[in-house]
Amino acid sequence: MSNTMNFSAGPGALPIEVLLEASKAVEALPETGISVLCMSHRSDWFRDVIDEAENNLRKLLDIPDNYHVIFMQGGSSLQFSMLPMNFLRGTNRHAEYIVSGYWSAKAFREGQFEGEAKVVWDGEETGYTRLPSLNDLDLSPDATYLHYVSNETVEGLEFTWIPGLNDVPLVCDMSSNLLASPVAIDKYAFIYAHAQKNLGPSGVAVCILKDEFVKRANSTLASMLDYRMHIQAKSIFNTPPVFSIYVLMLVTRWLRDKIGGLAAMGAINRRKADLIYGALDTDAGFYRVHGQRPFRSTMNIVFRLPNPSLEKLFLEESQREGFHGLEGHRSIGGLRVSLYNAVSLDAAKALSTWIVEFLRQHG
Amino acid sequence: MSNTMNFSAGPGALPIEVLLEASKAVEALPETGISVLCMSHRSDWFRDVIDEAENNLRKLLDIPDNYHVIFMQGGSSLQFSMLPMNFLRGTNRHAEYIVSGYWSAKAFREGQFEGEAKVVWDGEETGYTRLPSLNDLDLSPDATYLHYVSNETVEGLEFTWIPGLNDVPLVCDMSSNLLASPVAIDKYAFIYAHAQKNLGPSGVAVCILKDEFVKRANSTLASMLDYRMHIQAKSIFNTPPVFSIYVLMLVTRWLRDKIGGLAAMGAINRRKADLIYGALDTDAGFYRVHGQRPFRSTMNIVFRLPNPSLEKLFLEESQREGFHGLEGHRSIGGLRVSLYNAVSLDAAKALSTWIVEFLRQHG
Repeated sequence: MSNTMNFSAGPGALPIEVLLEASKAVEALPETGISVLCMSHRSDWFRDVIDEAENNLRKLLDIPDNYHVIFMQGGSSLQFSMLPMNFLRGTNRHAEYIVSGYWSAKAFREGQFEGEAKVVWDGEETGYTRLPSLNDLDLSPDATYLHYVSNETVEGLEFTWIPGLNDVPLVCDMSSNLLASPVAIDKYAFIYAHAQKNLGPSGVAVCILKDEFVKRANSTLASMLDYRMHIQAKSIFNTPPVFSIYVLMLVTRWLRDKIGGLAAMGAINRRKADLIYGALDTDAGFYRVHGQRPFRSTMNIVFRLPNPSLEKLFLEESQREGFHGLEGHRSIGGLRVSLYNAVSLDAAKALSTWIVEFLRQHG
Repeated sequence: MSNTMNFSAGPGALPIEVLLEASKAVEALPETGISVLCMSHRSDWFRDVIDEAENNLRKLLDIPDNYHVIFMQGGSSLQFSMLPMNFLRGTNRHAEYIVSGYWSAKAFREGQFEGEAKVVWDGEETGYTRLPSLNDLDLSPDATYLHYVSNETVEGLEFTWIPGLNDVPLVCDMSSNLLASPVAIDKYAFIYAHAQKNLGPSGVAVCILKDEFVKRANSTLASMLDYRMHIQAKSIFNTPPVFSIYVLMLVTRWLRDKIGGLAAMGAINRRKADLIYGALDTDAGFYRVHGQRPFRSTMNIVFRLPNPSLEKLFLEESQREGFHGLEGHRSIGGLRVSLYNAVSLDAAKALSTWIVEFLRQHG
């Protein structure tokens, strides 16, 4: 196996150039002679790293000045809880959730701990195979926020439109597609994403918060759970995950300098997804894509074969061919091809060819 | 500068062998051909890593079977809050705190968010220059827990005895001296420590919890803030900081195989501290150690020079000599020598010689 043929759903592939630079930095940073793992988070060197990471994100995503960008620990799962703690608890209002798959259902459950959380659309009834349109949503203008997940990593469903009402703050978990293509940041009050898909290694999450929304936050929370503390401290309230943020900075630099930004990245990602779906669609009776066609994700392609023993064979043979990480999520089974930014077009081509070949032999 | 002369207070020095192995793993793990940063947290490889990390900790610290060991994100600062959320909130009892320095004061402030937190001894009155004895503590047998910090990293004060009453669960932040010498785990209900002193890089914290104590925990908390969730999920409730845990595993392996355990490590640490204090004590009017003699830390040696310009000179000249990270904490100023496990006896010898030389030239 190798880093170039890694289709894992997360922690996912990272660019080879980034891995090589990070590897050297673990031995010793050229700038300091000391390992990146042993650098103080209060050093000028790290302040520069975190500033560049933020600035690269601001440029890549065209983030307006009235949004804060912070780096947090605890992954998206902690955001599932911090969101309702900060913006639902004690409000006498309700929060709204679109439940479109495994991860948005988890976010909803954590919302219920903190107040009245309401499901405005539930995809479970259709086996999480489709996404809603605006008419499907039971929205109310006095919700404290509306939450959704832009790409359901487990089921392979991706929103191509932005849901919600104008006056209700829109919150989105973009863990598996942030930085994969351009985003209209100004439509959102709060976007969060853990790093281990398109941003970097696990251990850090990015939060992009509109200032006006932050001002509404609950002010009685423990420091570590209060967004304002982390904003005020410029992401160094306590010792941050220095290495994870450093690698995230390298990834954003790669996107900026090698790829040329998110429009270019989005076009490459579209071509990669078309290659794999194209291969699967050569026999839709054999390769059964989980999501209905209009909702197919560019990031995670989820499918089944006619029976479990063929799926087992697919996994074994793909591994022998050097393709890594094609097993489906443990909750749903089957197979999954994840095509995060660092998966190259060549890798997608190689896999698509092999998918057709597997069909020829076993179809 | 180099990794061998790193006296930084944290993130601190790590063993050279560990840095070299971690560096290779970032490029590609020999076992998988894939970077450690891109390995799935659900892989057998990572399950082995986390199991070995736990087992090494259990052996090194002689942790009894009725204690859980879990790996968490958020550093000690999140533990400052999770402790009172789980064990104070909603109890109708009070929690007790020994406030002996910068970090224990922070822990106390977070306790106050969740219920009645009471200071049983306050070292601020004596400028955080000493630690209490048992008679100094205003303890009550019906406290829900007693919290203290075993080593105050900022002021350089270290407990040499274990405070508390038999029937009150004892909780300790051992962030800056866990794994530096043996610990009587069975005296404690809960020990926590972030990694970036003696355990590994930042991004992970270790929690050691007595099963009987965990059973008392508040059951209405968000999943990510509930110790039982993390225990049940064996530290993989959500995507953990894979790389930080991997390096922690390497560090515990180094302690086990190269150092030979915590008694051996403790003896080396004692000798290192004696060397530095010995050098400082050659002129106690010039080198003014912050803590009173019986409370001097083996991990963090905090001192001042007669005036700020001499302190500036000390920092500049020490850096020129290749000694890294000797500045004091921003809250207190002055100078600080941190002697975590990975700082070698040779490094301590070199620094102690230079300390005497600096005195000879400027004393």
